[in-house]
Amino acid sequence: MAETRVPTGIRGLDEMLRGGLLPGSVGVLKGAPGTGKTSIGIEFVARGSAQYGDPGLIVTFEEFPRQLYRDALSIGFDLRALEGEGKLRTVFTTPKVLLEEIRRPGGLLDRVVEEMGVKRAFVDSITHLERITPDPRRLREIIYTFLNGLLRHDLTALVSQEDPFITGTMSVAEAGLSYIADTIIQLRYVEINSTMQKALLVLKHRASDHDKRIRQFSIGPGGVEVSSPFEGREGILSGNPRMAMRIKRAREFFE
Amino acid sequence: MAETRVPTGIRGLDEMLRGGLLPGSVGVLKGAPGTGKTSIGIEFVARGSAQYGDPGLIVTFEEFPRQLYRDALSIGFDLRALEGEGKLRTVFTTPKVLLEEIRRPGGLLDRVVEEMGVKRAFVDSITHLERITPDPRRLREIIYTFLNGLLRHDLTALVSQEDPFITGTMSVAEAGLSYIADTIIQLRYVEINSTMQKALLVLKHRASDHDKRIRQFSIGPGGVEVSSPFEGREGILSGNPRMAMRIKRAREFFE
Amino acid sequence: MAETRVPTGIRGLDEMLRGGLLPGSVGVLKGAPGTGKTSIGIEFVARGSAQYGDPGLIVTFEEFPRQLYRDALSIGFDLRALEGEGKLRTVFTTPKVLLEEIRRPGGLLDRVVEEMGVKRAFVDSITHLERITPDPRRLREIIYTFLNGLLRHDLTALVSQEDPFITGTMSVAEAGLSYIADTIIQLRYVEINSTMQKALLVLKHRASDHDKRIRQFSIGPGGVEVSSPFEGREGILSGNPRMAMRIKRAREFFE
Amino acid sequence: MAETRVPTGIRGLDEMLRGGLLPGSVGVLKGAPGTGKTSIGIEFVARGSAQYGDPGLIVTFEEFPRQLYRDALSIGFDLRALEGEGKLRTVFTTPKVLLEEIRRPGGLLDRVVEEMGVKRAFVDSITHLERITPDPRRLREIIYTFLNGLLRHDLTALVSQEDPFITGTMSVAEAGLSYIADTIIQLRYVEINSTMQKALLVLKHRASDHDKRIRQFSIGPGGVEVSSPFEGREGILSGNPRMAMRIKRAREFFE
Amino acid sequence: MAETRVPTGIRGLDEMLRGGLLPGSVGVLKGAPGTGKTSIGIEFVARGSAQYGDPGLIVTFEEFPRQLYRDALSIGFDLRALEGEGKLRTVFTTPKVLLEEIRRPGGLLDRVVEEMGVKRAFVDSITHLERITPDPRRLREIIYTFLNGLLRHDLTALVSQEDPFITGTMSVAEAGLSYIADTIIQLRYVEINSTMQKALLVLKHRASDHDKRIRQFSIGPGGVEVSSPFEGREGILSGNPRMAMRIKRAREFFE
Amino acid sequence: MAETRVPTGIRGLDEMLRGGLLPGSVGVLKGAPGTGKTSIGIEFVARGSAQYGDPGLIVTFEEFPRQLYRDALSIGFDLRALEGEGKLRTVFTTPKVLLEEIRRPGGLLDRVVEEMGVKRAFVDSITHLERITPDPRRLREIIYTFLNGLLRHDLTALVSQEDPFITGTMSVAEAGLSYIADTIIQLRYVEINSTMQKALLVLKHRASDHDKRIRQFSIGPGGVEVSSPFEGREGILSGNPRMAMRIKRAREFFE
Repeated sequence: MAETRVPTGIRGLDEMLRGGLLPGSVGVLKGAPGTGKTSIGIEFVARGSAQYGDPGLIVTFEEFPRQLYRDALSIGFDLRALEGEGKLRTVFTTPKVLLEEIRRPGGLLDRVVEEMGVKRAFVDSITHLERITPDPRRLREIIYTFLNGLLRHDLTALVSQEDPFITGTMSVAEAGLSYIADTIIQLRYVEINSTMQKALLVLKHRASDHDKRIRQFSIGPGGVEVSSPFEGREGILSGNPRMAMRIKRAREFFE
Repeated sequence: MAETRVPTGIRGLDEMLRGGLLPGSVGVLKGAPGTGKTSIGIEFVARGSAQYGDPGLIVTFEEFPRQLYRDALSIGFDLRALEGEGKLRTVFTTPKVLLEEIRRPGGLLDRVVEEMGVKRAFVDSITHLERITPDPRRLREIIYTFLNGLLRHDLTALVSQEDPFITGTMSVAEAGLSYIADTIIQLRYVEINSTMQKALLVLKHRASDHDKRIRQFSIGPGGVEVSSPFEGREGILSGNPRMAMRIKRAREFFE
Repeated sequence: MAETRVPTGIRGLDEMLRGGLLPGSVGVLKGAPGTGKTSIGIEFVARGSAQYGDPGLIVTFEEFPRQLYRDALSIGFDLRALEGEGKLRTVFTTPKVLLEEIRRPGGLLDRVVEEMGVKRAFVDSITHLERITPDPRRLREIIYTFLNGLLRHDLTALVSQEDPFITGTMSVAEAGLSYIADTIIQLRYVEINSTMQKALLVLKHRASDHDKRIRQFSIGPGGVEVSSPFEGREGILSGNPRMAMRIKRAREFFE
Repeated sequence: MAETRVPTGIRGLDEMLRGGLLPGSVGVLKGAPGTGKTSIGIEFVARGSAQYGDPGLIVTFEEFPRQLYRDALSIGFDLRALEGEGKLRTVFTTPKVLLEEIRRPGGLLDRVVEEMGVKRAFVDSITHLERITPDPRRLREIIYTFLNGLLRHDLTALVSQEDPFITGTMSVAEAGLSYIADTIIQLRYVEINSTMQKALLVLKHRASDHDKRIRQFSIGPGGVEVSSPFEGREGILSGNPRMAMRIKRAREFFE
Repeated sequence: MAETRVPTGIRGLDEMLRGGLLPGSVGVLKGAPGTGKTSIGIEFVARGSAQYGDPGLIVTFEEFPRQLYRDALSIGFDLRALEGEGKLRTVFTTPKVLLEEIRRPGGLLDRVVEEMGVKRAFVDSITHLERITPDPRRLREIIYTFLNGLLRHDLTALVSQEDPFITGTMSVAEAGLSYIADTIIQLRYVEINSTMQKALLVLKHRASDHDKRIRQFSIGPGGVEVSSPFEGREGILSGNPRMAMRIKRAREFFE
Repeated sequence: MAETRVPTGIRGLDEMLRGGLLPGSVGVLKGAPGTGKTSIGIEFVARGSAQYGDPGLIVTFEEFPRQLYRDALSIGFDLRALEGEGKLRTVFTTPKVLLEEIRRPGGLLDRVVEEMGVKRAFVDSITHLERITPDPRRLREIIYTFLNGLLRHDLTALVSQEDPFITGTMSVAEAGLSYIADTIIQLRYVEINSTMQKALLVLKHRASDHDKRIRQFSIGPGGVEVSSPFEGREGILSGNPRMAMRIKRAREFFE
């Protein structure tokens, strides 16, 4: 356990990950829209460059750059400032262009990573790669090519992946991503007391112990904060939990 | 949080959105038929032009104009009057024609938006775009093109999207809309005491805090009104909630 | 609310609809086989002609005319007599032939509607149009063409649509029908005390308030009768409700 | 209600049907394998010929004639004897051959029906027609042709249809059969006290009142017997009911 | 009931079948992998030859003969010894080869059955026939051809069929097998007290009464043993039953 | 039961398997990502070579060798050291290359197995074979060819297979793997007290008795440890169990 870790810097999360991500590994952030994948990814890279001195890279397939900057600002990170200081780079591109750059030795991605000495990357989102091909087997090859392209540089990456349902069925990371992922972090909406709360669970953390509890988390001006586990509920991951309090009480009553 | 907001003017909703929509953003209204997507969209634009001085645009793919005017009147807005005053414009078109207009520089949409200085737009509904193509990847490109066409003008837009099920499964905004949407508002039927009530939930509000509670809302002659959260139920978003009252009572009893 | 309405004449239903259907509108009757769609449609037209002086039209794609006459008689309406008096017309046709007639100016449907001055129409059922094409997008165009053909005459129409499941999943009106429908009335089997009861719910009533309760209804020699809401059950629309009585009692007990 | 009926002769069922089937109508027997569709159909025809003097016809697509005779004997009917007396006829054929015979004026089926003056027919099963074509629209036309072929003679028919699931989802009669059917009788497995019991429900009985209760039935040496409704259970039609007894007791307790 | 039966020799099962299988019939053993289909089939044939003097045939499409011998030995039957005595024959083949042999008069299967005077056969499994064709209609014809080939000899057969899900949905015997089957025996995993128990249910037993209870069974060195029904549980066939004990107790308490 | 077994060496598992795997058999490890398939497979081979003197082979289709070594180290096994001592061999390859090698007599796999006298093999994972073909029937043939290629050498093999869902539906081993598998071990996430625990169940153990209980297991620096069964829960395999404690207590209370 004395192995070096890459701390995310996110309050509560590093403790769950027993110090952070594994150096040179790929982590997947899975969740439905609005669960906070982008916020976690941004904080991972921005704190890396601002706090740990790790040059960072954000690759996004979103169409509107201002959305990313706004998202980052709202949780306390000024990406433009970090870019100005040469500590961070954001790349707005399409899946197709990026793939070509990755396949070409000395392509854009290679150059950026080498010039800056990038240590942390966030890709938002792997789901966009589906725009290249409807064939699941070709898609899998593309994802492998893409992640290999990232990992041949000595960096640690988070990629986001979108879940197709808000509650209910929870499928595995698609397109073979689950094999290549060293860490899988599942984000989930949970309805409690007529309120949509957010849950975070580390589903996989390769070659390492980790906290298996399902924890609440919130996103605020100071960034993401993972807090205490849920209590007194059954079926949290279904998104629609049942109260278990009565049972605990009843047990004490009977005992 | 001092950022300017575009208030919807809808009672209860702006408070949930911490002031309103983000200027220059796209919000999605999701819900099954009859949940009130059109009413909310109309009120957003009509109040904008009548109350906040924002010229408004309503684009509808519905076949029958009189339905829209009737809907608006029934919640207190006289669209024809607002049109007469030059404060609002309604465009009845087909997805195909609209798409051509958007692609053509200086097309109809561009001209309308520029001439009127449109600040608020409502598109009813994005689901109609499926009529252009059965190919999900091409559909996604069309939706991007369409929304880009809207957003290159400095306006704030709401678009409606239809959920295919009345209760049960609740899927994500389709066709990649969830990526481009800054705000996602989910409308939902909820059966309580043998009555179909309506629930509203802000599922996503990019770069901003928001009220995460699931609230009741109603539509009347004075417009839409979002009121108090549901109480004492579990599983509201399933559309088929269970009473949780007994549990609360039981807990108090045991404590 | 002072707008004129077209009363269905069905006991209990007009009250739920705050007076009746909207003039010149299309209402959809959704439900599994045997839930009573045809009875409600017949009564709407037959009462219209017999009681309100509105000449009526019934278009059916059913193969056997005698079934329709028998159905009508069993709920107290003698369609042949009304036809003899020139107050009502029944058209037995195929979807294909009807569609051709609608497309042709001065076709059969146009002539019938104009000659008789039809004010109310019932089409049983829109689901039969699926026999023309397996392509959902073409089907949608056909339904639009068909309903437009009806609505360009100044009449009020009910169309039936068949739900594919008896209990459980409840999908939205298909093929875009939900957009064009001004009113959606959902019929549903409900198992209570080992008995298949019938429920009626007004899911949508455009531009108008309506009763949102789920009500019982029955079909007898005097026609359809919508009666009191269900009581003491949760999950009625699932078709398989749970008793909620214990909870109410328990609450009173604890309070 | 003074209309003539065709009694099935099955104990308990005629009472549910308010006298029996409608003359000249088609009834559908729906259920999973082993629920008793064949037994009910055989008894309807065999009792007709033996007890009511109605010459009967059984058309089966099953491969093995002896199975049919054995089934009949086990519930007390000797089909060979009835055939010998000229009161009943069984036709073993393939869907394809039968369809050709029906289409040809004066074909086999016509001749049999006319020669014998057939008044009751049982077709086991309509599901076999799927062997002719995988195209649902062509299948629907075939079923219509087939049933029309039967109904142009003045007889009353039962046809069986197989449900694809043993418990759970309960779909509607397929291929448009639900439109043409005057009566739909649903058979269902129900697990109660670790035992597979059988339930019968009249889902539709066109133009007539009927018993809406879900009743138990059994098949024995004396034939089929429909008995009392289920008691103290919720969700019987799911096949997996919940006890509701506690609730009743609890209610009494609280009252 | 005085009809001759073919006893399976399996403890508890013949009692459920009121003596055994019907002579000359086909029974289907349905269940998920590991539920014991092969053990029951082997015991039926092996006991037949060893105990009742019925020469037996086992046809298997499994790739590895030693697995079958090992399975048999583990439940107390030495198939090689029975083969040596000429009382039993095992055929390891592929679906394709077998089908050719069946179609050819005087083919392998015919010769084996006639030479040995086979009275009992077990085919493991019918699901393997899916390897011949992906077309469900052609598959159905193949299964009919295959079973007809077996049944034109005067023997009694069991065939196994694999269920695709371990718990949950329980579909009907596929590919029309349910029509041709005289007896359907359903095997099922049931989770009780954190243990995977096994349940056996006779779903269909043509032309005969049978035990409708869901019984536990186990497989040991002495063979298969069907024992007492499950008690105090609801929803056993779902594989995930609920305790019903509390209800029984509560009822006694209230009474 | 005196048959020789191949002990896995995993604490708690051999006891469940009544000594271990059957010599010369194939076992399947099924589970969602992160449930521990790879850890169990590694420990089986590594303990075999280090503790039981069985030369071992690990075939992996994962892209990144270092991941495997890291996984092994984290549970206490130094694969590189074992490789250095000639006790173990790891093969990193693609499904396509491997398949060619297997088909070619004297190909790579044959040579490795023969040179080293491999007694234990672990293949991670069979799911990767899906990359060769989208055709399920061809895939099945490939899996058969592949496993036959392994089994013609006198070794005992574990292969992993990925479940597509994290909780909920639990399908059978796909592509006919369930037929060829002598042992099926199911791994499962189970949410208890807001924590993701892991469950292990032996679903099938051909020709042998085995422990049918659902047991907890954990993965730590000392390897995998299967511990006590779950207690006081219903529906563990659903991944979302219900507390059953109240029932047990209540029963004692009433008794």
